[in-house]
Amino acid sequence: MTDYRAPIDEMRFVLSEVAGLGRVAALEPYAEATPELVEAVLEQAGRLAAEEIAPLNHPGDRTGSVFENGVVRTPEGFQRAYRHYVEGGWNALPFEPDWGGQGLPWALAIAVSEMWNSANMAFALCPLLTMGAVELLQAHGSAGQKSLYLSRLVSGEWTGTMNLTEPQAGSDVGALKTRAVPAGDGTYRITGQKIFITYGEHDLAENIVHMVLARTPDAPAGTKGISLFIVPKFLPDAEGRPGRRNDLRCASIEHKIGIKASPTCVMAYGDDGGATGFLVGQENRGMEYMFTMMNNARLAVGVQGVAIAERAYQQARDYARQRVQGRALGSRDPAPVAIIGHPDVRRTLLLMKSQTEAARALAYYTVASLDLAKAHPDPGEREHHRTDVVELLTPVVKSWCTDLGVEIASMGVQVHGGMGFIEETGAGQHYRDARINPIYEGTNGIQALDLVGRKIARLEGAPARAFAEEVRGFLRNGSDAGDDLPAIREAVGEGLAAFEAATDWLLESWARNPVEAATGASAYLRALGTLAGGWLLGRGAEAAARRLAEGDGGVGFLKAKIATARFYADAVLPQVGANAATAMRAADSTLALDEAWL
Amino acid sequence: MTDYRAPIDEMRFVLSEVAGLGRVAALEPYAEATPELVEAVLEQAGRLAAEEIAPLNHPGDRTGSVFENGVVRTPEGFQRAYRHYVEGGWNALPFEPDWGGQGLPWALAIAVSEMWNSANMAFALCPLLTMGAVELLQAHGSAGQKSLYLSRLVSGEWTGTMNLTEPQAGSDVGALKTRAVPAGDGTYRITGQKIFITYGEHDLAENIVHMVLARTPDAPAGTKGISLFIVPKFLPDAEGRPGRRNDLRCASIEHKIGIKASPTCVMAYGDDGGATGFLVGQENRGMEYMFTMMNNARLAVGVQGVAIAERAYQQARDYARQRVQGRALGSRDPAPVAIIGHPDVRRTLLLMKSQTEAARALAYYTVASLDLAKAHPDPGEREHHRTDVVELLTPVVKSWCTDLGVEIASMGVQVHGGMGFIEETGAGQHYRDARINPIYEGTNGIQALDLVGRKIARLEGAPARAFAEEVRGFLRNGSDAGDDLPAIREAVGEGLAAFEAATDWLLESWARNPVEAATGASAYLRALGTLAGGWLLGRGAEAAARRLAEGDGGVGFLKAKIATARFYADAVLPQVGANAATAMRAADSTLALDEAWL
Repeated sequence: MTDYRAPIDEMRFVLSEVAGLGRVAALEPYAEATPELVEAVLEQAGRLAAEEIAPLNHPGDRTGSVFENGVVRTPEGFQRAYRHYVEGGWNALPFEPDWGGQGLPWALAIAVSEMWNSANMAFALCPLLTMGAVELLQAHGSAGQKSLYLSRLVSGEWTGTMNLTEPQAGSDVGALKTRAVPAGDGTYRITGQKIFITYGEHDLAENIVHMVLARTPDAPAGTKGISLFIVPKFLPDAEGRPGRRNDLRCASIEHKIGIKASPTCVMAYGDDGGATGFLVGQENRGMEYMFTMMNNARLAVGVQGVAIAERAYQQARDYARQRVQGRALGSRDPAPVAIIGHPDVRRTLLLMKSQTEAARALAYYTVASLDLAKAHPDPGEREHHRTDVVELLTPVVKSWCTDLGVEIASMGVQVHGGMGFIEETGAGQHYRDARINPIYEGTNGIQALDLVGRKIARLEGAPARAFAEEVRGFLRNGSDAGDDLPAIREAVGEGLAAFEAATDWLLESWARNPVEAATGASAYLRALGTLAGGWLLGRGAEAAARRLAEGDGGVGFLKAKIATARFYADAVLPQVGANAATAMRAADSTLALDEAWL
Repeated sequence: MTDYRAPIDEMRFVLSEVAGLGRVAALEPYAEATPELVEAVLEQAGRLAAEEIAPLNHPGDRTGSVFENGVVRTPEGFQRAYRHYVEGGWNALPFEPDWGGQGLPWALAIAVSEMWNSANMAFALCPLLTMGAVELLQAHGSAGQKSLYLSRLVSGEWTGTMNLTEPQAGSDVGALKTRAVPAGDGTYRITGQKIFITYGEHDLAENIVHMVLARTPDAPAGTKGISLFIVPKFLPDAEGRPGRRNDLRCASIEHKIGIKASPTCVMAYGDDGGATGFLVGQENRGMEYMFTMMNNARLAVGVQGVAIAERAYQQARDYARQRVQGRALGSRDPAPVAIIGHPDVRRTLLLMKSQTEAARALAYYTVASLDLAKAHPDPGEREHHRTDVVELLTPVVKSWCTDLGVEIASMGVQVHGGMGFIEETGAGQHYRDARINPIYEGTNGIQALDLVGRKIARLEGAPARAFAEEVRGFLRNGSDAGDDLPAIREAVGEGLAAFEAATDWLLESWARNPVEAATGASAYLRALGTLAGGWLLGRGAEAAARRLAEGDGGVGFLKAKIATARFYADAVLPQVGANAATAMRAADSTLALDEAWL
């Protein structure tokens, strides 16, 4: 176990030079987000994450959350840390000021969220789910619902959950069976069982606001017959304080591979006749409402991938610095050296570092466009950021960043050698924790289908072409730093050509037969993510070269940004062509084998 | 949790059509290995693995081995299963008949070993370590040592361990400090601490024979001063039965990510003045002796990678067949279908299946050459199989197959969706168990360095050229089956060109600066493994096409072999070029970044 240190220089650099936080802060609603404020926010969040939340990660994994007699106890220290998190106002960062939010850009909030997740992903999940409830109510709640729930959820005083999944309804939400029957007084009686409810029960807050999908008696089948309800653990009393206990309970919690401190609950609604639920918006529009929340949640999960990669990287690098083993290759000196000096360990650390930075760049870049799509005065710009960036790249951030999280955590174990396989080191926890990210909030396979179906084929490739134009803009730029930027541009250019060929194939094959196109979806997504990461690292390198030429400070850091981008171009970008080729070549052979012979 | 079923048809096919077991059985020492006997061995081993050993895998993971008061208790059922394993003569399969072995080919033994490891890797580790002790004593033990220990180890009545690692001496074995002082009576007093000793203490056998590396008082520094000792838990009495307890003990066992049923022990030697050890061979030649065992152990660990991939694949496939979720893409029928019908799940299963079969093909092919290298009457053939196949490919089997084991186990979790993250499913156990394989028996990074340093550069590329010639032979063959074999040949040919370019680069850069070449070692190894797997699947497809043309039975199976090879060619072989490019391009940028900025 080693300490976590928030990579504040890196975050600031990515926000300003890659994500373009300056453009966001230039918009009227975000005028407060000055460089000084950004600095202060990152510093203070980094302190709380490093000093209080991170030290709870490993012990929390050992004990896990515990379920006894219907009560869930989170690990020691979680209550105190959550209190400090709420008291610091951290939960309110990106929300609307009307309800106590600070109204700061999502781009900044996501950097702060990365810190909580690096520090302790199991802890950070609780606010992540609350965020979903806030977004739902901000967008679709009635005035009364907002005044009762929003300020308490924004502050974090109460927490929120998302109740979608049932045993027969996972990826296919439309198959859910939980029932909501009008009680005659405007409320509904909710009965049914929900599974995989993150922080469905816990001891961190005095009330838990469950957002529950259910069907009214005459609802149509499938996703068109789903309604959304607020089902609080304690019904608010006249003063809005937690009053009568609602008819819902946690039936059990899961025994999971990772994020063990985070209780994953089976929730039973209506054992005694029906939990009281309050309809959000109109009946049968629940799925539509849920999607307003889901896209942001997918970005947040993508950032969890970045976060766990960062933590695994820091730990592996620190171990490699202190672990002395073996002499230097090609040296006559028999004295053993720190393993960070061995070429293969260095290569592994650079793969970890460069891909973590590429994933972070893509995530922050996409989230900054979320702010621009929301607040830009020009409708055309809003539309561009929404369609060509946020919608196109959300499934990529979710899948590519979380697949990388798993792969980088696995490399982190490997750098530790035998010690990596021993739980006390902590490297294994990241490997176990990271594995949930490609699964929840829409499996990565579903993200890939969303990308090729809704974001590419449905729009006849327009967002992919807009993306390619952005990349070509980078290729046309003339500035360079030695031979690094030209080499990066060449590798990005190779990748772009492969990506464009794959896009053409995709459009054509989708028109012919969507099943065929879908076989290549995951490889296509991987190609896009890898290319986008290389391009954004390249833009970072360009900015670093410019700042170096201008005699800006932080020479070591700026040179490292260029060197890391160059490594990624050399070592990682060749995968774009391979993934594009796989997507284009393997459709027939994916479908050829008789299912009985799988 | 699902059942394990030994893939006997596949194993027989790979043994006969890819590994060339016929050539091995044609050799005089292996005349017994008739097709009938091979069939019977696979059938019977498959039964024991599936019916008795596999069902212990998941419960064994839950309880783990338990350490209390110096005693290790293995999970319930392990004792009985191990007794049946010994009584069935399974431990003796590949060993010399002089000591009770059955003298069957290693190629057959490795298929059987795959079954034990698929069934229960934590259980199978105990015989795997015993095998190492047998090989050491067969090759280097005195007549007296052989008569005292060998027959009991060959039968499995006693088990063996390998004691190399110490806290400061992991990959760098030469740094070990355990001392061996002559006692004056021909024995030695052993004192020191060893860590990571697999099955160092347990309750499966009446005696444990520790093979311990230690230094005599005047030994030179480093690996040249290491001697090998037999240090039995109980000193054999006059009748060769376990007598006096030796001065050694298990001090603790590790709390690991996976293979929890397998006790990983800290061993303390000589707390009461010194454990009695018996020198094997001569002083200071311990490392040399250890290497006779280590190469086979590396192949065995590679097969563990195949085994866990097979188990994860079977489980994911069976789950995908029974899990019903979502409608078929592009269909108007709203009825939900089994997820095996969804294109991305199919793709994932095919990646699992085709890469598992490719890895198996490479492992069996390499091990068959081990038999040929040992028993072929022609010295030139022996030398060819030893140098161009076994030595070249051993690090590839170890690394590539175990990296695939991790990746395929990870895909297996993903196919399960949310259920994959819940321990009761069992998918997560494979993900956790698989993670040790790239680490132990020489980390995969060390294997890659062994490949490029000793097997390529030192021999000026000769084995790589011989390998390329074999592949070219396949490319020149004319037989085909529709357009599959031509397409496979084209993809293998592309991969071969990239591999040969990378080999040229490697030889040149090693001559210039080994550190530079070493940065590309892992990517080069991955390229070689991926290519070799595609080539051997292609040979299998060729054989399947021939047998189909001859009207041989098993049409469905043979067609599946061709379809699987074709999928691999389309979906996986493009990676060869990417990995070769990475190896060639990234040397400078791997070394460029100042270490302080990692």
